[in-house]
Amino acid sequence: MEERDPSSRAVTDSEHIIEALSEGKNKRVRKLLARLHPAKIAALIERLDEERRAALWQQVDAELEERILPHLRAEPRKQLREMDQEDAAPAALLDAEAMPLAKHSEQGHLQAIREALAEGRLKRVGKLLHRTHPAKVAGLLEALPPGERRAVWSMVETERAGKVLTFLHEEICAGLAKDLDPDDLAASAQFLELDDLVDLIQSLPSDIGARLLAATGGRRRQQLEALLSYPEDTAGGLMNADPIEVRADVRVGTVLRYLRLLDELPPQTDMLMVVDRTGRYQGGLRLSSLVTADTQERVTDLMFTDLEGIPVDMPAAEVAQLFEDLDLLSAPVVDDQQHLVGRITVDDVVDRIREEADRSVMQMAGLNQEADTFGPILAGSRSRAVWLGINLVTALLAAGVISRFEATLQQLVALAVLMPIVASMGGIAGSQTLTLVIRGLALGQIQRGNLRLLFTREMGISVINGVLWAVVIGLLVFAWFNSAMLGGIIGAAILVNLLCAAAAGLAIPLLLNRLGIDPALAGGVILTTVTDVMGFFAFLGLATLWLA
Amino acid sequence: MEERDPSSRAVTDSEHIIEALSEGKNKRVRKLLARLHPAKIAALIERLDEERRAALWQQVDAELEERILPHLRAEPRKQLREMDQEDAAPAALLDAEAMPLAKHSEQGHLQAIREALAEGRLKRVGKLLHRTHPAKVAGLLEALPPGERRAVWSMVETERAGKVLTFLHEEICAGLAKDLDPDDLAASAQFLELDDLVDLIQSLPSDIGARLLAATGGRRRQQLEALLSYPEDTAGGLMNADPIEVRADVRVGTVLRYLRLLDELPPQTDMLMVVDRTGRYQGGLRLSSLVTADTQERVTDLMFTDLEGIPVDMPAAEVAQLFEDLDLLSAPVVDDQQHLVGRITVDDVVDRIREEADRSVMQMAGLNQEADTFGPILAGSRSRAVWLGINLVTALLAAGVISRFEATLQQLVALAVLMPIVASMGGIAGSQTLTLVIRGLALGQIQRGNLRLLFTREMGISVINGVLWAVVIGLLVFAWFNSAMLGGIIGAAILVNLLCAAAAGLAIPLLLNRLGIDPALAGGVILTTVTDVMGFFAFLGLATLWLA
Repeated sequence: MEERDPSSRAVTDSEHIIEALSEGKNKRVRKLLARLHPAKIAALIERLDEERRAALWQQVDAELEERILPHLRAEPRKQLREMDQEDAAPAALLDAEAMPLAKHSEQGHLQAIREALAEGRLKRVGKLLHRTHPAKVAGLLEALPPGERRAVWSMVETERAGKVLTFLHEEICAGLAKDLDPDDLAASAQFLELDDLVDLIQSLPSDIGARLLAATGGRRRQQLEALLSYPEDTAGGLMNADPIEVRADVRVGTVLRYLRLLDELPPQTDMLMVVDRTGRYQGGLRLSSLVTADTQERVTDLMFTDLEGIPVDMPAAEVAQLFEDLDLLSAPVVDDQQHLVGRITVDDVVDRIREEADRSVMQMAGLNQEADTFGPILAGSRSRAVWLGINLVTALLAAGVISRFEATLQQLVALAVLMPIVASMGGIAGSQTLTLVIRGLALGQIQRGNLRLLFTREMGISVINGVLWAVVIGLLVFAWFNSAMLGGIIGAAILVNLLCAAAAGLAIPLLLNRLGIDPALAGGVILTTVTDVMGFFAFLGLATLWLA
Repeated sequence: MEERDPSSRAVTDSEHIIEALSEGKNKRVRKLLARLHPAKIAALIERLDEERRAALWQQVDAELEERILPHLRAEPRKQLREMDQEDAAPAALLDAEAMPLAKHSEQGHLQAIREALAEGRLKRVGKLLHRTHPAKVAGLLEALPPGERRAVWSMVETERAGKVLTFLHEEICAGLAKDLDPDDLAASAQFLELDDLVDLIQSLPSDIGARLLAATGGRRRQQLEALLSYPEDTAGGLMNADPIEVRADVRVGTVLRYLRLLDELPPQTDMLMVVDRTGRYQGGLRLSSLVTADTQERVTDLMFTDLEGIPVDMPAAEVAQLFEDLDLLSAPVVDDQQHLVGRITVDDVVDRIREEADRSVMQMAGLNQEADTFGPILAGSRSRAVWLGINLVTALLAAGVISRFEATLQQLVALAVLMPIVASMGGIAGSQTLTLVIRGLALGQIQRGNLRLLFTREMGISVINGVLWAVVIGLLVFAWFNSAMLGGIIGAAILVNLLCAAAAGLAIPLLLNRLGIDPALAGGVILTTVTDVMGFFAFLGLATLWLA
């Protein structure tokens, strides 16, 4: 009944608008405004106080403005016109900054968005966002505190929201996806390429991801499900389902006619895939060969066959190495019968390389790379506490070693002054070997065949540096405490610890690697434990022997 | 005179061959062999002892073999034939392994090369190398000790040697380039793309680089000099001089005819550059648009203009970010008048991203990323000693702090047992903040506008974790030493040190950044110094106050 009565419906909508406005749900405000007659909007505007009136006006787009203004009384009309003029003033600046390339102008752009945000000029924010690349919008969102972030997010158009989400780190992405209306999220997902959508679904909490999948229909749904079935860190997880297939025996002219029918090729298409009648991958045909070929030539004479299909289960790290080594722009992915199942493009490989590099640096400090730099304090504390707890266990181990020598320390308190030096020199030397070995393993430089050589070299370097710093520190300590004995003890301990450090730096990553644990993650903690324990033990142990 | 007497020349050549062979200069041996008549070679072979005979035979290629064998006496002929058969035996294996994609078969391939090398079967090594991608050859060379490395290097064909050099780390690259005959190096450089040649010249010692430049002629020389004039870490240093230019007002049919004349497009060509009559960049024309367009359409209707030209002086890091964000395959580079000067392709950007990631990990341990993992021990010791020396200074600082509290330590030796715990917890907490801030700066997440927010968040996390671990450690110490006072002291010290650590982790990278120093390089050392000094000072200082 209510639905049929236009005036009652308008009242309801108006109330909804005021409610959505007060909750900061700007996208919903805009949606509701679009359903309302301009005269009703004008009436609503006149009913509002000045502050809410300005906030609502920020959600009215240029076209609607023109239709509302005639319905307004002279006084509020003048007020809103003035507001718009203020907004429009730096329009020249806006144009000059379209798609800024250089970093300094980009920072100016972001600065402008932030200023508009601070002044509550959301309309201007929307205009500026519209001219900003989704990757930059994502960067801006990540740099904002949660409150402002939601405000900016509400001004991102639905068509671009999905793309922006794909550029965000996981924690932030999930938060903003939850903020969206489920319908809007589903709508924005339809603008995504299939591989981006797969990544998005995989990075969202499973309930939201499942809803996104359910909202996709037809052939796209089938392809999506196929792509989702591959593990994220394999060739299958990196690939897209959009290769363009041609047969080897057709002529160039036929291929060109076929392509013209397609009208537009998928992004990052540098080659077509040549397959046989059963869909087996046979080779590639570069667009650059196609455009330089005569229309009478056959595909079979132009195609290249020196690039094998990438097995769908190849680990993503190997895929990245392959793209790097062979300078590929795209590559075919095949199943175990050599059937073409997809295509990997270099842009996804680049993202993957960057993420890996980021992850390893963050992991070394026990941080989660997907975490929000400006997220809630409690969530941030929890993940870091784990790492501090692990470190406490190793520190207690070292303390336990020291406590066994309390009697010796009591006799000669100078030992307490010097013992951190021994531990820290060992830690530095060990981490040098560790870093070298972890990298060597990652690059494939280190193999069974040259382990012995590597061991000899690292021990050699340790002996040289061990003797060098044993002498230097021994002399320094002799000068400082005027005790040749103390100098001798610390020198000997330094040498012992540097040798142990090199051996540990070599053995730990090899062992972790064999156990299937990423040495970059746990290697550092284990190494420091070894060098601390060995450093204290060697130094205090030698002192005990000497003093006894 | 000597030149005219063939027998004397042959004698001289034979001697040269024997000399080159004994020095392991296999490339020279092969060159000399090519100049000699098969009969003379046969005579030479018969004069050699068995070992050198086998070594020489390894340098004779299949074609030459057939011409030499008839000149040999029956007995050595039989011997050499048998040797060849042994070499040829695993030919099936060779074919099956051509261009191996998967890592396991790749390792088998390298293993085969190494085995052939160990058995002195250089001919087989050469055959295997020929089927290996230059990037993999480079990887193999880096994994070999210097002696074997030179042997394998001597078997790489001149046409591929230049490409292999571009994949090597600097120190190894320079060493192997010096090993080559200057003429061979110059010859191999002519097979390189211009941007690879630029990189090679820049990574070689300046005398060798200058010689390479001098050996290049004509238009290539001019382009090379132009490219070399740009700093390595800018867009100019990344670019190649091979863009294909078209005018906006021509028709697709004309463009296609022009491309057919070129016959082959430069590698990684995904778009043509549209320029005006004066060479100013106006937009891009994707090959994928070209192949789907009608021949009557004009370039101006097909080209895209939303990608600006990259300024030639844009820092390489920004170029990489741009490629990542915009998913580019290639991009135009322009001078300050918007004239098109070159083209950057994504493969070089990928290499650059990987190198940067590698460099930052290595730098954090004070290692040089370009150094040879299997290089001479003394050279390896020197670079690491610097880092150990810097660490010693900071360790002495911490020791100096401890020594001020000798009296307190004398009173309560348990303090010596516990003080490393305080220092190490601070070190871990500080490095977490440090890593987050360094990454935030690199990603552009951290700007002036949100510093205050970041500070609040990091201090908040520190307070939570500080209180948590102060209580945990305080209780543990109380239980261990049965002293509430000691538990209280260490708890308070932990809290103080974690707060200082967060402040230092935030301030150090910001300060270094403003001073133009890479925070990833020096940040860690400075931070540990602060947390060690503060940890010892807070703990022992509080203990002194309490005990007094």
